[in-house]
Amino acid sequence: MLPARVTIYEVGPRDGLQNESANLSVEARLRLIAALADAGLRRIELGSFVRPEWIPQLADTDAVARRVVRRPDLRYAALVPNRAGLDRALATGMREIALFMSATETHNLKNTNKTIAQSLAHFAEILPVAKQHGLFVRAYLSTIWGCPYEGKVDPARALEIARRLRAMGCDELCLGDTIGVGNPKQTREILELFLREMPAGLLALHLHDTHGTALANCLAAMELGIATFDTSIGGMGGCPYAPGAAGNLATEDLASMLADMGIDTGIDLVKLIEAGALAQELVGHKLAGRRLQAALGRRQPGEARIAEAT
Amino acid sequence: MLPARVTIYEVGPRDGLQNESANLSVEARLRLIAALADAGLRRIELGSFVRPEWIPQLADTDAVARRVVRRPDLRYAALVPNRAGLDRALATGMREIALFMSATETHNLKNTNKTIAQSLAHFAEILPVAKQHGLFVRAYLSTIWGCPYEGKVDPARALEIARRLRAMGCDELCLGDTIGVGNPKQTREILELFLREMPAGLLALHLHDTHGTALANCLAAMELGIATFDTSIGGMGGCPYAPGAAGNLATEDLASMLADMGIDTGIDLVKLIEAGALAQELVGHKLAGRRLQAALGRRQPGEARIAEAT
Repeated sequence: MLPARVTIYEVGPRDGLQNESANLSVEARLRLIAALADAGLRRIELGSFVRPEWIPQLADTDAVARRVVRRPDLRYAALVPNRAGLDRALATGMREIALFMSATETHNLKNTNKTIAQSLAHFAEILPVAKQHGLFVRAYLSTIWGCPYEGKVDPARALEIARRLRAMGCDELCLGDTIGVGNPKQTREILELFLREMPAGLLALHLHDTHGTALANCLAAMELGIATFDTSIGGMGGCPYAPGAAGNLATEDLASMLADMGIDTGIDLVKLIEAGALAQELVGHKLAGRRLQAALGRRQPGEARIAEAT
Repeated sequence: MLPARVTIYEVGPRDGLQNESANLSVEARLRLIAALADAGLRRIELGSFVRPEWIPQLADTDAVARRVVRRPDLRYAALVPNRAGLDRALATGMREIALFMSATETHNLKNTNKTIAQSLAHFAEILPVAKQHGLFVRAYLSTIWGCPYEGKVDPARALEIARRLRAMGCDELCLGDTIGVGNPKQTREILELFLREMPAGLLALHLHDTHGTALANCLAAMELGIATFDTSIGGMGGCPYAPGAAGNLATEDLASMLADMGIDTGIDLVKLIEAGALAQELVGHKLAGRRLQAALGRRQPGEARIAEAT
């Protein structure tokens, strides 16, 4: 039984851009976010309150957060790596934050410079403050489908961490196939384990498309009731600490498949392709999304809109 | 319940190459076919007995068929467009042929210059001769998931044609998403209709990956017992009469997903990536297969084999 409605959580302006070599201006990032919102995306991760020395592409997320057009039906989130980041999120009016850790020690160390125990202790400090301010808190738990350093991952170990995150009061757990090596059988096994003790509504999936299996994994997850998926416009992204990883699942690829299946996402596909074309123009190279390239390939020269013959 | 074993039917040397601008020599085509066989593929469509004016890329399929290394465990097929093609197939020792038609009038006319009724009449002439010579006959039925000219297709109409093909004695029906616009829900609906009156073992699926949904469609089909899928090495292909269509599902993408799911295909993935690298070298441009690009991206310069860290 597939869900009637799926929420697409757009990570392009954060996870996408942080892995692009182009450093977009605040104006360009705002243009992209506006195009995504205009296409009907209702959850958008707009940036990260990380120090600009670490990720220059996301410098001045404060200005993005301050200047983004807010609407009651539109939820923005930002990644918060530490207490200073939380203060910046609060100062710029964010109502949702995302915390980040990995299910494997090596990836967590390389990516956050903390052990898993240190990340958990750190979350335990940040969460009460965030909750006190009424923030919605998403926690990313990465590398569950595979780790570029440790290889196969025991889902029971990931579940143990997830249990702790839930007990701390995280409102959403986003389970990550950070390097995009998952398969549908594995997706089912991981989720069946998690769903034994957690409601499907608590979980989101963050899939990369390195091996082209992200949509098949979404299908397997939807069959188990998962209805929130992270995607990146055009398939931008990757992971600097995950060698060989390709970009995120492309927003258009998922939105298009769901529309064709009659599953409601609230997204206008024509406008979404426009947002993808804009993303491609801004980063200055061809993006990997299949649906985007199919649509752009069908465009006649000089044609403003897309002919959707098929 | 997923099948324990899946047969991958390689169409790269035919469907792939006929849509590439490079005209490979017979020697190059034989090298590619040998690499595919060496990787463990056991069904390979080696070419088409079409007139070289029509598809110069497949000229001299006779020489390919004559010179290909034959082994008892390896099945070669070739496309046969007409009686002259059948005679060429018989003269070169082929034991399997493939006939081709579409489920929509316009695509069939543009692609074969025949109406559907004419194609069926034509098959009815060729089949008894083929059967008399003991050939295994596959029939392609294309554009079932969508037609570039007629849009949506009524699966009941496709089933009606399939029924006729079966009654004529075709040994295998290969159902095609020729332009790669299918989704898993539609795949299920189409197959459930066919499976009401046909065994799963009679059916194969020929999926293109224009919208990135081919693997998700394979998953939906496997859940219904389908266990034969067409793929093309590196994702070569497309369709000259299907504007905007991208290539076939890449052999490595499916083989890799199935291996990860514990489904036996008999394929050696490392050798398959080598075959993909060869295909890319022969056609002279980067191929679309995700798994191939991920593997090649992980290669260190000068490294002969692929590091499969993840």
